[in-house]
Amino acid sequence: MTLPKRIQVCEEGPREGFQIEKGPISTARKIELIDALSRTGLDHIQVVSFVDPRRVPGMADAEDVVRGITPEPGVVYTGLWLNDRGFERAVATGRLDIKGTIVLCGSETFLKRNQNRTNAEQLAAQQVLVQRYRAQGYEIERGTIMAAFGCNFEGEIPVARIVDLAGQIHGIADRQGVELDHLSLADTMGWATPESIKRVTGAVREKFPALELALHLHDTRGMGIANAYAGIEMGIARFDAAVAGLGGCPFAGHAGAAGNVCTEDLVFMCEEMGIETGINLEALIECARLAEDIVGHPLPGSVMKGGSLRRLRAQAAR
Amino acid sequence: MTLPKRIQVCEEGPREGFQIEKGPISTARKIELIDALSRTGLDHIQVVSFVDPRRVPGMADAEDVVRGITPEPGVVYTGLWLNDRGFERAVATGRLDIKGTIVLCGSETFLKRNQNRTNAEQLAAQQVLVQRYRAQGYEIERGTIMAAFGCNFEGEIPVARIVDLAGQIHGIADRQGVELDHLSLADTMGWATPESIKRVTGAVREKFPALELALHLHDTRGMGIANAYAGIEMGIARFDAAVAGLGGCPFAGHAGAAGNVCTEDLVFMCEEMGIETGINLEALIECARLAEDIVGHPLPGSVMKGGSLRRLRAQAAR
Repeated sequence: MTLPKRIQVCEEGPREGFQIEKGPISTARKIELIDALSRTGLDHIQVVSFVDPRRVPGMADAEDVVRGITPEPGVVYTGLWLNDRGFERAVATGRLDIKGTIVLCGSETFLKRNQNRTNAEQLAAQQVLVQRYRAQGYEIERGTIMAAFGCNFEGEIPVARIVDLAGQIHGIADRQGVELDHLSLADTMGWATPESIKRVTGAVREKFPALELALHLHDTRGMGIANAYAGIEMGIARFDAAVAGLGGCPFAGHAGAAGNVCTEDLVFMCEEMGIETGINLEALIECARLAEDIVGHPLPGSVMKGGSLRRLRAQAAR
Repeated sequence: MTLPKRIQVCEEGPREGFQIEKGPISTARKIELIDALSRTGLDHIQVVSFVDPRRVPGMADAEDVVRGITPEPGVVYTGLWLNDRGFERAVATGRLDIKGTIVLCGSETFLKRNQNRTNAEQLAAQQVLVQRYRAQGYEIERGTIMAAFGCNFEGEIPVARIVDLAGQIHGIADRQGVELDHLSLADTMGWATPESIKRVTGAVREKFPALELALHLHDTRGMGIANAYAGIEMGIARFDAAVAGLGGCPFAGHAGAAGNVCTEDLVFMCEEMGIETGINLEALIECARLAEDIVGHPLPGSVMKGGSLRRLRAQAAR
């Protein structure tokens, strides 16, 4: 299989990162990072989540953040929501790209802890949500399967269950006459290895060959970049990522939960392998350093420490 | 290509790590880490380098470290040397496995900075060294090509040059009637990507199909585990690694030079993919935490922060 010529990155650092930081981070500094990211060539930035401020205090200022950013032409700004209230808050900002996502989960135990719903309740809720999106004229862009590669509470997740969930998402979409743009498989708790990435994405693709796949990879155990590479080898060309490796999941059940795969490390790998990203790596590295400055502690990204190869190549060419 | 069933890891953390640390580390604590590593199932530990103590003060106590360790049956302990003086010091300890390595370098500029020799001088020196090893009855185990994937001072290294260097190493071995056990390709300055790993190892293997390849991967830009995976995909089953990601190169020309690929992250990936390592991951994670305690600052390993999956699996099975 030939590698994709271009990959698309959805930057989730501001949302993933600021929802988990313990210390309060000012709205102004969140906006500063988002505005810097807007000027790197990224074309999709997920800026906030609309969740219960009692459970996720770091996102209590979501509306203020959205109001404060300076949108760059060509950049899509989105937010995350998990229920009706969140959806309404996102719509009410009037400044976000509102598209529906059909979200199911590979682990009912995780779903229960994360969103306080059973599988059946989640499925029913998604059907209701999709009807509402359609009634209000919003598109449904993608499906997402959380915990698609393993779960801290349930252990291994059978591949057949993920294929089955992909079918359920397809079913919801079909009943509403919706054509999904892509299906995102999330390694929410950092259980995936390159081989399980290939196994799960291969099985889903075999059953649903027309559906484009995307990956949302947490780097909890240092496998993020290798897992992204395995995805790229499978022809996957859409990745969520977080600048500097910001983030983590507040409900994943252990303290070491690292963030998403690091955007600039992913961009570095792709560009070095001849895969276009459309992103200015040097500008992105500056954003990663800014992110470290904002959170006030070291972040896991590697390329911001080791440096890109551009300067070294230029010096060597002299 | 099917993946190897088992990989072999050479632990280089004590050597890679303690040679670069700025603060003084007591001989006793170096010994403590090596002795802990000896009980993890690792069968090869490179414990020290015999280099000029004025250039690498952290290795001034190399003899004392070797004298102080408690060798575990079945574990091979080695040292690194770069010249005659170093070789004699290693031999004089009487406690190390002394095997010759034929070392050439993809970048003459790096060679000059690292060992103050031209390519021609390095080649001549290797011939003299091999004769001496043979005269004294020592085996020559492997060849090594440093800077095989790129150089901070020369930039890209042509694949043809690496194939050529592999031929030169073969030539030295052949002239002395030596059969090499394997050839190690070193990404000394962290330039490799999964694709360049495949390109270079594929080209060398095509020319020398009988020669087993090994990889020495620095994680400067976060590509270490992905590069190891690409090597595993190519059927490579020998890797150098450093517990907790200890190390870095004191002459690589920039401050961010990270250490070798992290041993416990590599072992985690392999074991999770069904590839045996013979290493007890939990014991290794304890060593990684010990290494952090000894150097007194955070080290880059991920699995020691995120934890293995063993406990989570056990809880999930209940």
